Amino acid sequence: MKALIIAAGKGDRLNHLTKDKPKPLIKILGLSLIERVVLTAKQAGINEFLVVVGYLGDKIKEKLKDGERYGVKINYIENNEWQRGNGVSVLKAKKSLKENFILLMSDHIFKAKILHHLKQIKLEDGECVLCVDKTPKEHIDLEDATKVKVENDKIVEISKKLKDYNSIDCGIFLCTPSIFEALEESIREGEETLSAGIRVLAKKGKIKYFNIKDSFWIDVDTDFGFKEAEEILCNRLTKPTDGPIAKFLNRPISIRISKLLLKTKIKPNTISFASFIIGILSAFFFCLGNYLSIVIGGLLAQVSSIVDGCDGEVARLKFQQSNYGGWFDTVLDRYADALIIFGMVYGYWSLHQNIIIIWIFGFIALVGSFMNSYTAGMYHLFFGKEMKTKRLKIRIGRDIRLFLIMAGALSNQIFYTLIILGILTNIESIRRLYVLRNKQISDDSKTLKGVRC
Amino acid sequence: MKALIIAAGKGDRLNHLTKDKPKPLIKILGLSLIERVVLTAKQAGINEFLVVVGYLGDKIKEKLKDGERYGVKINYIENNEWQRGNGVSVLKAKKSLKENFILLMSDHIFKAKILHHLKQIKLEDGECVLCVDKTPKEHIDLEDATKVKVENDKIVEISKKLKDYNSIDCGIFLCTPSIFEALEESIREGEETLSAGIRVLAKKGKIKYFNIKDSFWIDVDTDFGFKEAEEILCNRLTKPTDGPIAKFLNRPISIRISKLLLKTKIKPNTISFASFIIGILSAFFFCLGNYLSIVIGGLLAQVSSIVDGCDGEVARLKFQQSNYGGWFDTVLDRYADALIIFGMVYGYWSLHQNIIIIWIFGFIALVGSFMNSYTAGMYHLFFGKEMKTKRLKIRIGRDIRLFLIMAGALSNQIFYTLIILGILTNIESIRRLYVLRNKQISDDSKTLKGVRC
Repeated sequence: MKALIIAAGKGDRLNHLTKDKPKPLIKILGLSLIERVVLTAKQAGINEFLVVVGYLGDKIKEKLKDGERYGVKINYIENNEWQRGNGVSVLKAKKSLKENFILLMSDHIFKAKILHHLKQIKLEDGECVLCVDKTPKEHIDLEDATKVKVENDKIVEISKKLKDYNSIDCGIFLCTPSIFEALEESIREGEETLSAGIRVLAKKGKIKYFNIKDSFWIDVDTDFGFKEAEEILCNRLTKPTDGPIAKFLNRPISIRISKLLLKTKIKPNTISFASFIIGILSAFFFCLGNYLSIVIGGLLAQVSSIVDGCDGEVARLKFQQSNYGGWFDTVLDRYADALIIFGMVYGYWSLHQNIIIIWIFGFIALVGSFMNSYTAGMYHLFFGKEMKTKRLKIRIGRDIRLFLIMAGALSNQIFYTLIILGILTNIESIRRLYVLRNKQISDDSKTLKGVRC
Repeated sequence: MKALIIAAGKGDRLNHLTKDKPKPLIKILGLSLIERVVLTAKQAGINEFLVVVGYLGDKIKEKLKDGERYGVKINYIENNEWQRGNGVSVLKAKKSLKENFILLMSDHIFKAKILHHLKQIKLEDGECVLCVDKTPKEHIDLEDATKVKVENDKIVEISKKLKDYNSIDCGIFLCTPSIFEALEESIREGEETLSAGIRVLAKKGKIKYFNIKDSFWIDVDTDFGFKEAEEILCNRLTKPTDGPIAKFLNRPISIRISKLLLKTKIKPNTISFASFIIGILSAFFFCLGNYLSIVIGGLLAQVSSIVDGCDGEVARLKFQQSNYGGWFDTVLDRYADALIIFGMVYGYWSLHQNIIIIWIFGFIALVGSFMNSYTAGMYHLFFGKEMKTKRLKIRIGRDIRLFLIMAGALSNQIFYTLIILGILTNIESIRRLYVLRNKQISDDSKTLKGVRC
């Protein structure tokens, strides 16, 4: 299925930004608005795009080109009459679209999941579908939004000025070519907006709605809107699996770092590697053993933990996630964990050569630390879903482990830190074996073909 | 979808076994033939069964009861005329089956995958489908088999005596109720076998075939057939991911042990735990440090490695696989690995207290050993498929690691064993990071929601 993207307008409410740059090219967290739309649609499996350009259209063409660098195909339609309503822009694609298509605005940010579901809706002859938000979040500017009244499965009224409405137009459509006839009709009657075309369809009972429910979307129109969108995108980076240290200490800092990184071309895997190198440095300082070195080691461990959040953040915001990237990151994390614990043991032992038992506690801490990661990772593999923090109230994740290490280093308590780490992590791992034992979800043999390591 | 299982006959060629036990109740590797059929079908998502019983039918009812212990629903149909052809048995179900159903023989062993695909075939009015094997393996007794001639997508002839055939009847059907009319017609004409009914359908062009290709099936009719089926089921326990030691040394022994275990009620998780306990014992003997203890430790490590194969074997042969079981096994394996390496280090160090470097080598070996398992397991999680041995020609799996440990123990070379183990496992893990770096399969974000450990 192709997608038609409307990118012809000027964006009047952003005048100071759109003097020499069309609105779709304004960047937000490392990607321009239209790049975000293209890449989101790609995530939902859409690989062919028609972009209607108008105001400073050449700059858009210059940026996106044929789409190859995004792994998609992009063609352009010129709309010289871009100062007319946006319905005119849509209508320009009439000749090029003879089949069902997705219609998107170049200034909307939204979750790929919405398109994923929308694509699967079966349309009857001449029907279109508009995505609506029945429970708009705070960030949606209701005054400026296009309001919609739905009844049963149909849209009955749509307008910016509608008072009696029960949902908001998200600007995401699934269309049959009947949309073009509807637009021709409304334009003949002197109304040139897309909403006017939709009203024509509504009168004929030909426009259904799709409720996006809790899925995220935002329409970026003003300076304030940009800031808000940026904030929302950043807040969405926190994961449900984040531990308390990750959530309250690491994320707020890592997101700030990521914002800077997004302005560069640094790749997520490079960030993973940088976090690993910081981990190695931390281990090196721990090896030296004296208090000052230990303090530096501890701080670096915490820095490594923070930077470790940035790879995923940058990857998600720039649509650069990859299987390899996730795997690479998690494997390097384990090596860094091991090196840091080794450094702590070695450094301590080199100052107190008689206390050989530190090696034993180091072993125990290393095993427990590994097993925390291993039990969680393998749980995900075998059960096909993440081990939930809810059920397991204490979870000694990496964020907590590295924080404990920093705290132990600052207080010069390497010995007890290793003991505590060893006890907490191993108790947690063994507890998991016990607590989860009744989860005997039997299986269609799919996930079970056996990981033998 | 329901399945009809024909279990009324006597099994004449197994006379000495079927005097006081109907053929479907003869056990093969811990489960009776009919239990295998029910549990295989259950794996393919079939949860309701109709079983036609005849010869010693009460014993079958007594065994399977209402199916609750298998997690399915079983009802019975009596066929007092079981000495007539098997077409009569099928016909007894006429009143009970008004919709499409799967038809199975109680003495066939086959892969669930066949049913899984068969269920998805769309049938037109009055059509049936028979599974055929176009390339029967050696173990199929061609003399006794029912031969089939197929043309295009239809079966044109079927008979035991057919000379001009191109496939073999696997005894697995997808039927519409039209099968009953066909059987009535053939019985009226004096032919009472199921094949005769199929011939009636073939004449009307109403029987399609489904090629099972490489999927495993076997029809168990004779003493020899039983032995052969047992052997084949056992051979199929070897996994493509088995390393060389697992394949050539461990499996042949573990399968023998599993055959004994299958006669008991011992559960797979109990076996995993037993293997773990043997691992702990191995670690304990290594801790003692003297040569004799080390030898015992090394041998126990290898025994643990062998017994570690039995849990999966028993689980697969008894349909007792579970997500928890796989996870439990893999987590205990890692703990056993760690304990054994710790034992080696501690034992060596307690005899040579000046050689503190053994602790460092122990750390390295422990990390490498873990990372071998971790990289493979996480690869499976992130890429959604197993890391293939093909691409990665050397793979230091658990079988090789524990074998190396045994060899090192027998030759009293703990020190060098730990060094070799550390080098091999870490080189392998780091190599994986490098070799797989171009597998940037981008993603629909499904597998990527992040395992943060």
